[in-house]
Amino acid sequence: MSEYSGPDENEASVGQVQKQFFTFAEPPHEMVLESGLTLGPVTIAYETCGTLNQGKNNAILVLHALSGDSHMAGVYREADSKPGWWDIMVGPGKGIDTDKYFVICSNILGSCMGTTGPSSINPGTGKPYGFDFPVITIGDMVLAQRKLLDHLGIKKVLSVIGGSIGGMQVLEWSIRYPEIVLSAIPLATTTRHSALAIAFNEVARQAIMSDPNWNSGYYYSGEKPGLGLAVARMIGHITYLSDESMRLKFGRRLQDKRDFSFNFEADFQVESYLRHQGTKFVERFDANSFLYITKAADYFDLGKKYGSGSVVKAFDRASTKFLVISFTSDWLYPTYQSKAMVQGMKKNGLNVSFCEIEAECGHDAFLLPNERLSNLINGFLEGVSNEN
Amino acid sequence: MSEYSGPDENEASVGQVQKQFFTFAEPPHEMVLESGLTLGPVTIAYETCGTLNQGKNNAILVLHALSGDSHMAGVYREADSKPGWWDIMVGPGKGIDTDKYFVICSNILGSCMGTTGPSSINPGTGKPYGFDFPVITIGDMVLAQRKLLDHLGIKKVLSVIGGSIGGMQVLEWSIRYPEIVLSAIPLATTTRHSALAIAFNEVARQAIMSDPNWNSGYYYSGEKPGLGLAVARMIGHITYLSDESMRLKFGRRLQDKRDFSFNFEADFQVESYLRHQGTKFVERFDANSFLYITKAADYFDLGKKYGSGSVVKAFDRASTKFLVISFTSDWLYPTYQSKAMVQGMKKNGLNVSFCEIEAECGHDAFLLPNERLSNLINGFLEGVSNEN
Repeated sequence: MSEYSGPDENEASVGQVQKQFFTFAEPPHEMVLESGLTLGPVTIAYETCGTLNQGKNNAILVLHALSGDSHMAGVYREADSKPGWWDIMVGPGKGIDTDKYFVICSNILGSCMGTTGPSSINPGTGKPYGFDFPVITIGDMVLAQRKLLDHLGIKKVLSVIGGSIGGMQVLEWSIRYPEIVLSAIPLATTTRHSALAIAFNEVARQAIMSDPNWNSGYYYSGEKPGLGLAVARMIGHITYLSDESMRLKFGRRLQDKRDFSFNFEADFQVESYLRHQGTKFVERFDANSFLYITKAADYFDLGKKYGSGSVVKAFDRASTKFLVISFTSDWLYPTYQSKAMVQGMKKNGLNVSFCEIEAECGHDAFLLPNERLSNLINGFLEGVSNEN
Repeated sequence: MSEYSGPDENEASVGQVQKQFFTFAEPPHEMVLESGLTLGPVTIAYETCGTLNQGKNNAILVLHALSGDSHMAGVYREADSKPGWWDIMVGPGKGIDTDKYFVICSNILGSCMGTTGPSSINPGTGKPYGFDFPVITIGDMVLAQRKLLDHLGIKKVLSVIGGSIGGMQVLEWSIRYPEIVLSAIPLATTTRHSALAIAFNEVARQAIMSDPNWNSGYYYSGEKPGLGLAVARMIGHITYLSDESMRLKFGRRLQDKRDFSFNFEADFQVESYLRHQGTKFVERFDANSFLYITKAADYFDLGKKYGSGSVVKAFDRASTKFLVISFTSDWLYPTYQSKAMVQGMKKNGLNVSFCEIEAECGHDAFLLPNERLSNLINGFLEGVSNEN
């Protein structure tokens, strides 16, 4: 659900990467969605780091969250100061070691970073889909990723790894394609949204849909619903942090003033931070994509889909090895939700390691530098790699 | 920060009440605000329950939160099905017993329920103030209440009682007018907003100010910024509940449909609830009042104002007896904030009782029926009454 803007001056150790595209266009290559509708052509933007070995058995899928993209690590040009969103984790000698593994990350279906989404051209009209884009699900995102793997000729992946909405995709992969997935690392995620998580998403959606520029989803030829999207993003940012991390990061510190303004300017640093995050997001993200992806996350319900309402029953289909990680201060997907998931796995006799990492930075913890997290992932992958 | 709509068919035991008004208009009766600006004339809407005794020593001030009003208990007309917002607490034989006490509740300065606020007529222009209304503080609200007491000829109050923003007024009263206040009951409140609480308020304000109908605060002759205010209210409602209470109240239950709509209608009951709360609020509340009152709450900082940054030092001025109450699931003003306040009181040798009440309903708990809460308040008031 979040993104990490990365240390600004950090040189990415993975070096230069390139965005690539794969399009499946003609029937029967059209996608049949979980809603029953079809979608095509579908283009998938993806990037890779490391080298696929001859046996094609060192591939890892990294799955991104709400506002992420295929650019997980490295830089596009030598002059780039901003590496990919998970550059702290993906690279030579890092948690996901690109000296050993061939790491793939694709932009999710419904997004706006190269993969087909509501801002893409609808071949039926020659104009952007807007709200004619069909409602998609986490399952649909995973199906698109599966088609990319087929295209790359990869029949097995050593691991699928992702946090937040990326973690939902990880869980979907593990149950839907147990024959492909050797291991899975769901981070800071859940098998289904709580009422609280749905509530936050719904209010964010209402903020977008209340913006007159949103125009029922058909705004691509005019002004964008930037004010609504900014408010939506601000709501999101509150959920990515925590009471404690906001206290440490901002407290009640004032902006560059000595006292209150007695007007409605941003007095406090936290206000200014949120306004800045909102404005920045509008420049790079599509409001409709925000609506579609949050709806997919709200719909996600592993137990409902695969276990007639039971998470335990759902994991009966899985055979992969799991490493489940939660963070103490994550109040969007609190640890009790990870524990419920782990219990579902264990009751099916699955090989699962679970770790709750002490972190004060809330849900965003999985995106921030954390030696323990890197070591856990690195060690787990090494184990899986040695076994296979 | 919240309100309780009350049991719909409940007959209010306090009987019929009437809204009354007191206006202080001419200099020197103009208010000098904490910002340094002046405001006048100022009208205060208030209601009373019970009878002021001859000694005028049985008065209690009830102080309301963000969206409340003077109508704390009873009904306006016999046919009214909806009693005041704290009718569960204020009435004959209830927690605040109107057979014994004379209970006063006035609408806070800056609100829109009879007391002067941004929607009132600016005598300088003959039009509603809009954003010409000065930024007010919790201290200004309390000063207006003080003027009402003077008007009623009441020199001492047995207790000041309020939750949330009402609790901030309670704390302000106890330090500003120790010679008037014999006891004080701050409920579900804080001596200052955390960065998290400021963040929620700021995003809500941004939702209002992003609505084109808001028109920089001057909208009274045209369309109201209803969509923005509705989103602001939805954000508020999330903070008044808790993960647990939302799970119990809504879980993932769907609206009157058997499955997902695969569109952007309200699929989940929690979505429908929030939309309903937003719409309902717009009918009765003014968007500018929301901005001004939340800003006052964000500015409130007892330690900064009265103790050069120290809460302990601030309570040095108080001499009242305190009953401090927090609720386990209140994540807007968590118990640790009440504990810090209690520590500040204790270090000054003040007589303070503290109770954390087990409740799953979040911040709103102070507005909901709770026998323990009623008994605590009742017993505390009886003790204070007997001592004085």
